[in-house]
Order: sequence, then structure tokens, then C-alpha cells
Amino acid sequence: MSSPYKRLKLSLETPVPSDYEISRKQTPKHITEVAKESGIEDSEVEPYGAYKAKVKLDVLDRLADRKNGKYVLVAGITPTPLGEGKSTTTVGLAQALGAVLGKRAFANVRQPSMGPTFGVKGGAAGGGYSQVIPMDEFNMHLTGDIHAVSMANNLLAAALDTRMFHETRQTDDALWKRLCPVQKDGSRDIPRGLEPRTKKLGLDKKDPRDWTEEEISKFVRLDVDPKTVTWKRVLDLNDRSLREITINQAPTEKGLYRKTGFDISVASEVMAILALSNSLEDMRDRLGKIVVASSKAGEPITCEDLGCAGALAAIMKDAIKPNLMQTLEGTPVFVHAGPFANISIGASSIIADKMALKLAGTDSQNPEPGYVITEAGFDFTMGGERFLNIKCRNSGLAPDVIIIVATVRALKVHGDGAPVKANQPLPSEYTSEQLDMLKKGCANLQKHIENARQYGVDVIVAINQMSCDTANEHEVIRQAALEAGAVDAIVSNHWGKGGEGAKNLALGVIRCAHHEYPIQKQNAGEHFHYLYSVDSNSSIKEKIETIAKKMYNADAVEFSPKAQQKLEEYTKQGFTNLPICMAKTQYSLSHDPNWKGVPSGYTFPIRDIKASIGAGYLYALADKIQTIPGLATRCGFMNVEVNKKGEIEGLF
Amino acid sequence: MSSPYKRLKLSLETPVPSDYEISRKQTPKHITEVAKESGIEDSEVEPYGAYKAKVKLDVLDRLADRKNGKYVLVAGITPTPLGEGKSTTTVGLAQALGAVLGKRAFANVRQPSMGPTFGVKGGAAGGGYSQVIPMDEFNMHLTGDIHAVSMANNLLAAALDTRMFHETRQTDDALWKRLCPVQKDGSRDIPRGLEPRTKKLGLDKKDPRDWTEEEISKFVRLDVDPKTVTWKRVLDLNDRSLREITINQAPTEKGLYRKTGFDISVASEVMAILALSNSLEDMRDRLGKIVVASSKAGEPITCEDLGCAGALAAIMKDAIKPNLMQTLEGTPVFVHAGPFANISIGASSIIADKMALKLAGTDSQNPEPGYVITEAGFDFTMGGERFLNIKCRNSGLAPDVIIIVATVRALKVHGDGAPVKANQPLPSEYTSEQLDMLKKGCANLQKHIENARQYGVDVIVAINQMSCDTANEHEVIRQAALEAGAVDAIVSNHWGKGGEGAKNLALGVIRCAHHEYPIQKQNAGEHFHYLYSVDSNSSIKEKIETIAKKMYNADAVEFSPKAQQKLEEYTKQGFTNLPICMAKTQYSLSHDPNWKGVPSGYTFPIRDIKASIGAGYLYALADKIQTIPGLATRCGFMNVEVNKKGEIEGLF
Repeated sequence: MSSPYKRLKLSLETPVPSDYEISRKQTPKHITEVAKESGIEDSEVEPYGAYKAKVKLDVLDRLADRKNGKYVLVAGITPTPLGEGKSTTTVGLAQALGAVLGKRAFANVRQPSMGPTFGVKGGAAGGGYSQVIPMDEFNMHLTGDIHAVSMANNLLAAALDTRMFHETRQTDDALWKRLCPVQKDGSRDIPRGLEPRTKKLGLDKKDPRDWTEEEISKFVRLDVDPKTVTWKRVLDLNDRSLREITINQAPTEKGLYRKTGFDISVASEVMAILALSNSLEDMRDRLGKIVVASSKAGEPITCEDLGCAGALAAIMKDAIKPNLMQTLEGTPVFVHAGPFANISIGASSIIADKMALKLAGTDSQNPEPGYVITEAGFDFTMGGERFLNIKCRNSGLAPDVIIIVATVRALKVHGDGAPVKANQPLPSEYTSEQLDMLKKGCANLQKHIENARQYGVDVIVAINQMSCDTANEHEVIRQAALEAGAVDAIVSNHWGKGGEGAKNLALGVIRCAHHEYPIQKQNAGEHFHYLYSVDSNSSIKEKIETIAKKMYNADAVEFSPKAQQKLEEYTKQGFTNLPICMAKTQYSLSHDPNWKGVPSGYTFPIRDIKASIGAGYLYALADKIQTIPGLATRCGFMNVEVNKKGEIEGLF
Repeated sequence: MSSPYKRLKLSLETPVPSDYEISRKQTPKHITEVAKESGIEDSEVEPYGAYKAKVKLDVLDRLADRKNGKYVLVAGITPTPLGEGKSTTTVGLAQALGAVLGKRAFANVRQPSMGPTFGVKGGAAGGGYSQVIPMDEFNMHLTGDIHAVSMANNLLAAALDTRMFHETRQTDDALWKRLCPVQKDGSRDIPRGLEPRTKKLGLDKKDPRDWTEEEISKFVRLDVDPKTVTWKRVLDLNDRSLREITINQAPTEKGLYRKTGFDISVASEVMAILALSNSLEDMRDRLGKIVVASSKAGEPITCEDLGCAGALAAIMKDAIKPNLMQTLEGTPVFVHAGPFANISIGASSIIADKMALKLAGTDSQNPEPGYVITEAGFDFTMGGERFLNIKCRNSGLAPDVIIIVATVRALKVHGDGAPVKANQPLPSEYTSEQLDMLKKGCANLQKHIENARQYGVDVIVAINQMSCDTANEHEVIRQAALEAGAVDAIVSNHWGKGGEGAKNLALGVIRCAHHEYPIQKQNAGEHFHYLYSVDSNSSIKEKIETIAKKMYNADAVEFSPKAQQKLEEYTKQGFTNLPICMAKTQYSLSHDPNWKGVPSGYTFPIRDIKASIGAGYLYALADKIQTIPGLATRCGFMNVEVNKKGEIEGLF
């Protein structure tokens, strides 16, 4: 069959060279060609150099009448620190569907932070023969979206601290005079950005000249309680020295010392908003709703109160357009948004998914649906749960297929194999057949499958093949998967062979998306549904308990006094109707990274609860989560150089 | 004559609408069209959307054999806080030369910081009918160069602080094991980024296995003296709270508290390096030479010692390509680099100038030279002096014509007119003819002309016309200018009329560049030369004294004890052969902003001296210079909004 994409040929080598060598050897197509093949019109493309482009949101309007293509979520089992290959599977599957099988197929992935790029982590572009290329452009600035997030986040921080400063130095009258100066005709010039505040205070229908002193005071004085400030500054680097800092120490700041800190940019609520917005207007509204602190009276202070939501939207107006790149085999990839998996949803953007689903969608000219493959960070039970209960709730979309990526290695860990660590030789059980250990470990896979099945979506297990695996081991996994209700379990070697290596997996996905597995007939009555409701009378506490019990297999949840207090505060402030983003370790189904397999009979602890009101969720922390990583003694950056041709060397 | 550029027509209105309205009304050409008209080949252009592009440095190689076009420097008299229109003159003159007179003509301007964009300052894209368009793109992220500067700057800061942390926590042996782990074959893996350090210590010719304990210690332990750290972090915002901060206060940082602060990104030495580099390799070398601190033994610690110069270059590899935009009349503009005028050179990049001079250059097919108009921040005596003694010394270029922009308004201030302030009504002397006051103030203009003439370059005075000016007043300025040695003084109204308004000025520039003014025959023996030498035996002190006496009209220079100590330290460290960047107020020829006209009989004070070794200069501070501005009670951002079409509103 004719493929929509000119396939870029792979010249496979054994052993598989480094990711960067593979990327460098391939000559990508010009991005305008990829766009055209993807059904994007010239006027909708904004190239950023030869291999990256932003795509205008106009596509969504133009294709509004199409029925969406098939939506495939790639999730995983509880991983080891080596990673089990979700990104690689996402990209490899798109190569198989698009370049090998000739279907319309999009891989939708997150933009990686540059912090870890210069730390110790590998690239986030997939790996081996399943990659997004050029991988250096993917891992560096891309088109500047994360920089825009940093700027927007930090403008809000500067606006808040400056306002607090000016309020301590000025009377109500002086603030009023400066914020809203008297015009020649005697009227007051209220800046556009503060109009929402006039509305919030019910002053918008009254001429400012008629405002009472009390009304003026209420308008000009936010009266922020410095102890309640939750908004931090960000940068996109692993800078541990900024975790906790004291600001305002210059003499010009008159002794208003305040403890605060920096997060990594991808942990910013602005990044979560970018991922969860459905349109530019939606993003603008969410930016306005960000809560940065409370007033001394306990009222939430928002970005809108500071009058800078419009400016934040202006900074982000290009960032909201999805970025187009391509796989190693020349199929399209959307790279858009990258909220930090540790405290946020760890998934790429809703807008990119919607755009890809329309481009892969059906109408009278395109009767056969294409595929959009996207990934949820961490394991299914954390990342997949957030994807379904938060991202899908915000988008209104639902996946047609859930893929759970498993490796023999990780399942042996869950069967009591010795711990595995990065940059250290693997213990012998990982290089020899160990069927009993593996069988035991498969309980972890089964729990993830069962968890996914709770949402009414069909599951395929992708066994990500590694060189030491045996056929018997694959069969053990396959049987366990089918037993737990997966429609299929398919071995895939996209890392070593690109799309060709994932062809069987792709055929399984097509079959599943078209409900052609016999078991799917039995499930025919099932429909996608969320795990918990946000509209009902269910409290924040009940939602958290539902997730902990149904997903993590906990018996009960224990809330710390701090968490209790937050429960009360958010309930009082009216933030109960929001989904919950759980922040816990990714290395166990429970909160304890050492508990492998399927922990049971335990109490899940909630240490603290925080709010991302603009993004639209509360997040509950089961542990102290580091929101800005550090650098090691030997860092990734020490290997990086630019050669005379201007090419980057030594990146991964 | 046929023009190289398709001219975009202006529909002039009176009164002149806001800058943003004018920009919004004009439909720019696609940037690939501007590139083609400018003589840039398709393969050399990397579009960033429709109206911005990066231009590859390949242009420099392709056109290496061309003789450069004419190089025109736009400088100014001592300004008022309202600004006297240098940027507007730069852009307007390019419109006159290119769109009106059909010459090849490039305006080369700085990229503005986003900090002031959201503060109170106007845009930096020119103004009225002489602008770079689209002005919102110009004033916002552009192609991300400043973001790259921030990232590079801050990676170096994180690398330094992390190294200091690890050195306090680890023995030499542990550092050695981690930095350069033992390989399977027993050899040591020295990261590429640390090879320069092996060279610096004379260890590069010896197998690391044979290094002595002392050599290993020297290699792995930078032994930074925390009190000597000069490297600060940056962000591109007016965030006064970060002026002075204490870092390392998280428990993970083990009490290594340290006072430091943030500068605005454009004040970063990395930005100065971007402006002063002649090639990618040159930039890479300069990044390596950045001195961030001293060791406890008093040795300078460089970026190269930290092993991250290659990574900084990788972050900056695209930033070094000049950005192409266009004027309101469709002529080409290079926007590239924007080092902070307060402490750095305040001029756009050498690379962009070299590229434009080749594109405007002559060969057998192009016998007539084109023009490159560029600007030096602040007045001639500060900005122009830095341009000639630092930027030109680094590039090897010399201007053919110096334009000094003067206004009736500012010269009246120098003639003892009342002070003028932004956003306040002008005193009456500025709206009526005041010939005596003006005559007196012209001394300031004359000193700037004489200063410029000290370099052996011909000067034209551009009288930037304003609505209240009278013909008599223009004539007073003209006579004063000629008397002081200017070859001409020409009234220009580019703000109100675009290129057509600057036509006479353009004709004067052409005439001057071709040595056609009679007075130029008399000056024929003159050639461009620097004010002081850096190669000779002249000390740092002597260079500073030369600038203060010959340029600022001071009688003597007084060095504070701190400055004295720095003189000794830098002399000891071997940093004497560098030009000096003087940091002082722009509102007076002297160090005191209140001294108007031509101050004399005074001693010029030097408070402190600092080093930008990578950029290649020392900077001497005559005052406490604020390196990160603050936000006012009412800020620019309060007016900004994004409309439903995704357009920014309320920006200026």
C-alpha cells in the first residue's frame, strides 16, 4: 500500500551504535516536507530552521469536522532506574505504523528539560533505531517553549515580590495614584490587566471616581501574607544551590528578606497549564487563575490580581503551537510541553494530541483512521492514572488502546532479583533464564493491567526485547498478561531494528483499535470512565483514598497534620472540584521505593497537599519530592563540545 | 535607479500613531524574500516563522573576497531621560538609503532585553515611521538568543557551585575516582571538557596513571575561594528581589551558605562574548577564558577549569548566527546581541556587522558599495568610545562615517534648561525658540564632535527634528557643529516621515563616505586610530586616565582603595593588555548626572574595577551600577493582553 510518508531508510548495525551516532548518520527530511506529508498546509507551518516547525492552531479549525483517529497510550510497569523503554516504544511503534505499514501515524512526546541533558540522564528522544531526530535539536532549545515557560513563571514571581515591596512602602493613596493615574479629563486610567480585579471585587460597574476609600484600599492593596507565598522562580537547569534561598537582601529592598527557592522550569505550573490547555483562550484563563499566595485575610491571590495574566499569555503565545519533528524513519512527531512527572502529569500537551488526532482522523476522503501514539511518564499506575483522570478529563478524549511496556529485567526485580543500578554491571540473574523469579515478578505487570482495565480500556502488553531475554521468558510474561486481562502481549525489538522490529506490535494495536480480538467481543459493553468523579460530593480526601486503594493496593490513607490543614484550607477556598495529581516514587506501586512486586496491607501516607489551580488540580505528596535536581561530580556537560562544523559532539 | 528591495509603502498619518499601531498596520514581506533581496542564498537562511530568520555564518566564507561596504556608526550627544533618537535614526537612515535611494543598506541593531519590555521603557525597535517590524516579535523572544545566553551563564554558575559543594564533601581520591573513572583496561577516562585543564597544568603529556598524588590533587581540586566568586546568575527580567540573595540554604547543601545575586541576562559576560566574537571558534575560546573566581592561592579559575566551555558553546551554537528582520519600508535589519550598555559595550555583534559589510560589499559585479548602519548605546563619548576602542579593536573594522544625533531639546538641557522627565509635561523653554540657551548647550555637541574627531573619523551631525523646533534653532546647531569640525549637520525627520524624512541625511552620508565634502580633502591625511594602545607598556591606570582626560574632560582620576587593590590583582594575574570599558552615567560627560554641558576642572573617581576576561576587557565603575532593574508600581505588563487572533495588544 502507498504510504503517506517518504520512508527514511535505516542502515542497521550490530552492536547498535550510540543514540547520537545513529541520529547523526540519518539525514532528516526538510520539516516542510514532513508537514505536507502529515496533511498540514503550508500556511499552517512556521519552520524553525530546517528540521523543526511550529504548527498553527488553525489546523484544529480546518479539520474540526473530522472524526478523530485512534488514540494509543503507552504506559509501563513499575520501572527500574534504567528505564523500561516507554519513549522508545512510542517512537518505534509510530515508525512501524507509519513507515512500515503505511498508516497515518503520529508520535506525541514531551519536550525534555535541558537540566538533565547536562546532568547524567540520557536523551529523551527515544533510543537506538527508534528516535526523534535530530536528537541534539530535540534535547536543546527546540523552539524555545521551555524558555517561554521560564519567562512567564518568573515575570509572575517578579510581579508578586515587587508588589509586596511597593505595598510596604506606599499608602493606599499613593498606590492608587500610581496604579491608576488621573487623566486629563479627571477620570482614572485603570490598566487593562487590572480590570478582572475590578470585576472580582464588584467594582466594575462603578466609575472609579465614586469608589469609596475602603473600595480603593481593597483594590490597590493585595495585602499578601509573605508566609503563604507558594510561587517559586524556575530555571531549566540542575542547580541545587537554588533549592532554598533568601531574597531581597540588597539594601534597595529595605530588609524584606524572604525565604523561597527555584524549581526546574518543567515543574512550573505554567508548564502544566501549557500541557492541559485546550486553546489559547483556555491557556489565558488558566494563567489568570494561578494562585500564588493568600492575603492576610486568607483569600487566594491570583495572577489576575497582579494584573499580569495577559503578559504571561503574550510570552506564551507561540509556545502553545505544537512543534513538529520527525522519527528516524521520517514519520511525524509532535513534541510539545513537558510537565515534570515528579509533581505534575508527566504527559505531553492536549493541543498536540487534538491536532494529531484530527490529522490522523477520518472523513469522506480519509475513511481509514490513523494513529496517535503518546506516552504517560512513569508507570501506568501513576502516569497512566494521571493521564486518564487529569489529562483526559481536561481534553474530553479517551484512549482506544493502552499499551503497557514490560521488560524481563524489571519483572525479575519485582520477583526479588537484586537491585539494578545505572552504570553498574547487571547481577547474573539478569543475564540468565530465571523463570520462577520472573513468574513471581509478573504480579506487578498483572496489577498494572488490572488497574488499566478499571477504566474500561483494552490493554496490550509490549514486551520490550533485550539481548539476554529467552523465548521461555517472553512466554511467561505473555501468559501472565493474558491471564490478567490483556488482549495480547507482543514482543517488540524497535530499539535494535526500528519500525520493522515493532511491526507485530503495530499489527496488534491496529487489531485492538478495530476491536478485532475475540476477547474484545466479551468486553464490548465496556466504556471508558474515570476512576473518580470531581463533580459529585466526593471530598478531596475521598478522591485520594480512591486512588490509593484502587490503584496502589493500599488499605488506608493517613494524612499528616499539615495535609489535614491543607484539606481544610482548600475546602474552605472552594477547590474541592479538582482532580488529584499524586506525587510519589515511581519505583514501587506504593510510596516506598523498596517495596517491589505488589505491596499490600499497608497505609499510604500523605505528607502535604498543594494546589495548581490554573492547571486545574491539587497535588498530594507522599514524600519530599525534589523539584530541582542537582549535578553530579562528573556531569554530562563535561563531554560536550562543538566541532568546527558547528555540530554538537558528546551529547549522550 | 532600480532598488534591490521591494519597498513597503508607508501611509503616513498626522499625528503619528503609536509605534505599535504603525507596526501592526504594515504587512511585512516574508523573511525569505528579504534574505534574497539582501543577497543571502536560500541555503544560508533558517527561517523562524515568517518574519524572522537566522543567517548561517557560511555567508562570510562565500563572500570573503568582497571588499567591505561602508560602515556608519550612529552615536549621540549626552541624552536626556527621554532619549534623543539614535535607534530611530539608525533605522530611518537605513530606510532612506535602501528604500528611498535604492542603495544596498543594512541596519544593525541590538536585541532588546525582555525585562524593560515589561517594565516601563518603550520598545527598542526604533519608533514612529522608522521601525523594525514586527515590533512585538522584535521585543519578545526573537529567536531565543537571550534565552541561550541565560542558559549558558547559569549552567556555568551551577557547575561552579556544585563543584564547590562536591569538593567540600569529597577527598581528592573520591573526586579523582568520580571525575575520571578507571576503565576496563585500567586507563582513566578524562572527560573531554577537562582536557584543557590537563594542558594548563602541564599534565597532558603524561599518562594519568603516572600522575603523582600532588598532580591529581591539583587537577581535581579547584579550591575556589568562595569570597572571590564574581560569577552571578542571570534572568531576562526586572526582578529586583534577586539583586542580592543567599543560596545553598536547603538542608541538602550542608550549610554552605553564600551571598550572591542575579543580573539581567544582557549584563552577562556571555552576552558580551556573543557581541565580540569573530567566529564560532572564537566564541568557544572566549567562553573557556571566562574567569569566575580565584582559588585560595589567588589563581584565576576559568570556565575551562570547570570543564563546561564546550557545553556553553553548544548552548550558544545557534545564537551566534545573526537574526534577519526588516524595517517598516522592507529593507534588511540584522538584530544580534544586546550587551548591557551600563556595564558592557552596548553595541550589536561584530559577526552581524561583518556579515552585513560583506553583503553590502564590492566586487566586480557590485562596484558600488552599500551601507551598514549601526549604533553605539549611550552618547558618543561613552558608547562610541567603547565601540571604537573595544568593538573595533576586536573586529579590526573601522567606521567610515560617525553620525552624532542631536536634538534641540537635549541641547537646551545642556544650556541650563530645566530638567526633563519621562511622562511629565515639558517646561516652556522646550516648546519655544530659545537661541541663547541652545547656543550655550551646543558646547556639549561640540565636545562629542571633537572627541569623535580624535579617532580620525569624519563626523556628520544628524539633527533629529521635533515638532516644536524652529529653523533658527536648527541653524544654531548646524553652525556649532561645523565650527567643531563636523563635515555637515543635517535635519532629519525619519520619525514622522520614514525614509523620505531622512533622505538628506542619507545623501550626506553617501557624500561623506565617498570623501566628497571639501573639508574632507583637508583631513585627507587622517586615518582611523584607537585612543590608547593595549599592546604597549601602558598600565591599566594609564588607559583609564587617558579615557577620563581626553574623552570626559577630567583633570585627574582618583582610584578608591578597592579599585587600587583590583589594579594590583589584575596586573599580577596578567590582565593588563585589555581595553577598558568605562561604566558611568550616560547623563553627563562626567560621572555626575547633574553636571550638564561640558564639565571641567574635576577629578573622575573609579570606585571598582572588574574583569570580563572572556569578552576581553576590564570594566571600571565610576559609580554603583544597578545590574538588574526593578519594576515600578504600575508596570508595562499591566497593559498587555493577547486577543483572540493570538495578537499581542498593549505592548508600548
